[in-house]
Amino acid sequence: MVNLAIVGYGNVGRGVLAAIPRHPDMRLAAIFTRRPEVVRAEASDIPVFRLDEDPPGNINIDVAILCGGSKEDVPMQGPMFARRYSTVDSFDTHARIPEYFREMDETARRHGNVAIISAGWDPGIFSLERVLGNAFLPRSAGYTFWGPGVSQGHSDAARKVPGVLDARSYTYPIDDAIKAVREGKTPSFSRRQMHRRVVYVVARDGADKEAIRKAIAEMPHYFADYDTEVIFISRREMAEKHATYPHGGFVLTSGETAKSERAILEYRCQLASNPGFTGSVLVACARAAYRLRCSGQKGAFTMLDVPPALYSPHSPETLRRDYM
Amino acid sequence: MVNLAIVGYGNVGRGVLAAIPRHPDMRLAAIFTRRPEVVRAEASDIPVFRLDEDPPGNINIDVAILCGGSKEDVPMQGPMFARRYSTVDSFDTHARIPEYFREMDETARRHGNVAIISAGWDPGIFSLERVLGNAFLPRSAGYTFWGPGVSQGHSDAARKVPGVLDARSYTYPIDDAIKAVREGKTPSFSRRQMHRRVVYVVARDGADKEAIRKAIAEMPHYFADYDTEVIFISRREMAEKHATYPHGGFVLTSGETAKSERAILEYRCQLASNPGFTGSVLVACARAAYRLRCSGQKGAFTMLDVPPALYSPHSPETLRRDYM
Repeated sequence: MVNLAIVGYGNVGRGVLAAIPRHPDMRLAAIFTRRPEVVRAEASDIPVFRLDEDPPGNINIDVAILCGGSKEDVPMQGPMFARRYSTVDSFDTHARIPEYFREMDETARRHGNVAIISAGWDPGIFSLERVLGNAFLPRSAGYTFWGPGVSQGHSDAARKVPGVLDARSYTYPIDDAIKAVREGKTPSFSRRQMHRRVVYVVARDGADKEAIRKAIAEMPHYFADYDTEVIFISRREMAEKHATYPHGGFVLTSGETAKSERAILEYRCQLASNPGFTGSVLVACARAAYRLRCSGQKGAFTMLDVPPALYSPHSPETLRRDYM
Repeated sequence: MVNLAIVGYGNVGRGVLAAIPRHPDMRLAAIFTRRPEVVRAEASDIPVFRLDEDPPGNINIDVAILCGGSKEDVPMQGPMFARRYSTVDSFDTHARIPEYFREMDETARRHGNVAIISAGWDPGIFSLERVLGNAFLPRSAGYTFWGPGVSQGHSDAARKVPGVLDARSYTYPIDDAIKAVREGKTPSFSRRQMHRRVVYVVARDGADKEAIRKAIAEMPHYFADYDTEVIFISRREMAEKHATYPHGGFVLTSGETAKSERAILEYRCQLASNPGFTGSVLVACARAAYRLRCSGQKGAFTMLDVPPALYSPHSPETLRRDYM
């Protein structure tokens, strides 16, 4: 059995908690959180600790799964936990991955641990599929489409517009763009040609809806580059119809293996629960981190560096017999 | 530069030859073949050797790519070449992979080489996707669909029916079955529910076409378990419309991350040239074999055992910056 700790008990932490019983060789040993009393009330049969607390000697932890946010939690908690345990995280600020990798590599190496960073579906599985596509089809064109699904960052941005009580932003890939790539075309798309956005908004009573619509649709970086539809709904409709976090997307690679011999590779995921699936991937990555550590490795890894068999509960012999 | 040898100059060997110039760090050093004179006439600027010949000292070979058939060529040539070089092959007799792995592992280990076996798209990439799907979604249902594409084994079987001069067998996945899985259903399909076959046949003049149709459609193992359509065409139409080897397929994994939270993963490839794409994958695998060898590893590997970054021409830093 591999002993896991959950660090940070939000949506992804709950996803990890839900995933663990489905992985027969994994058990939860502890939860670390900023709010031990709150979490203890909810998860009464699991030892709960403050982030900086050292659990008593009878609590054995092989891998700590960092489930906090990438903006403030993981950059601080990553190095903090990589000193004590092997770690897995889903750090997803793409531009800062090289820098975070270096820091985690140094810390984990110094303390003899393994740290798998930026795991999940994107970054993570999608990164893997982008690299495989480019390696198997050199000089190809690669495309990543996201959605249909809820974008947390865009929901947060819309929620900050004056007069907005609550907001949920959905990303949709443009079907015709995917169709064109699937049919062998390799266009250079603008942002608007690949994705559109729909934002459901609960407005304050008496708020200027037209002003809200304009403020969201024209917000630079987040919405201005896309066709964005703003739909006003009631608080009740928000609670009833937009309480879950579905997501998904596509990685497409289109190239030629010889003159006019096209090859098109496509990876797609459809996820009813983004944090639920991320949690399940993180648990499989914890298995890989544990095995890497047991085989004497140390330092930081991304999913690009991990032999895929290490994610599987099955033995190499079973995989060769039943999955090849 | 990594120095490659092609072993066996058939369709896959030609695919490897076409792929090499697209991989900037790869060069062809030699071709090994049973028919050196024939190959020399076609590939005049490349040193050509008999299978058992030892090239002169000025010819440096890092990885030998075995491109022969899985029935007779690779089982014999694999151990023969793994004594001399690191190797890559596309051995695809699924039931015999465990046994072939053991033999290649022993030979490669003894001689300090790396042997990546059973690479390509299936076995190979599809194996990888089956394992990842099962690891990320435990207790899920996995489905592999093949086609649309030409099945060599089924074409050969149809060609042996008396009265048949030439035959080409196409496999088609059943669209409704794929649709059901994509929509979240997890049925247990019969073979007939997953695939159908269409066989184009050139019959000898005066042959009994009804007898040929019956002999093909009712052939056990190959066609009897599927809805099989037999279409008679002229020799000329066969040459004009069925000279290429397209193929492709789907790997689908459908599971739950929590009660009624479904997650569906899908990998798909569409290949205008099956041997062309296989060749390109084998070249990327040769890069991985070379790097594994350089890092001190030895023995047999499948694509399940290879860290994906090793297939890529890009450095780990570039991959973390541009592909994560």
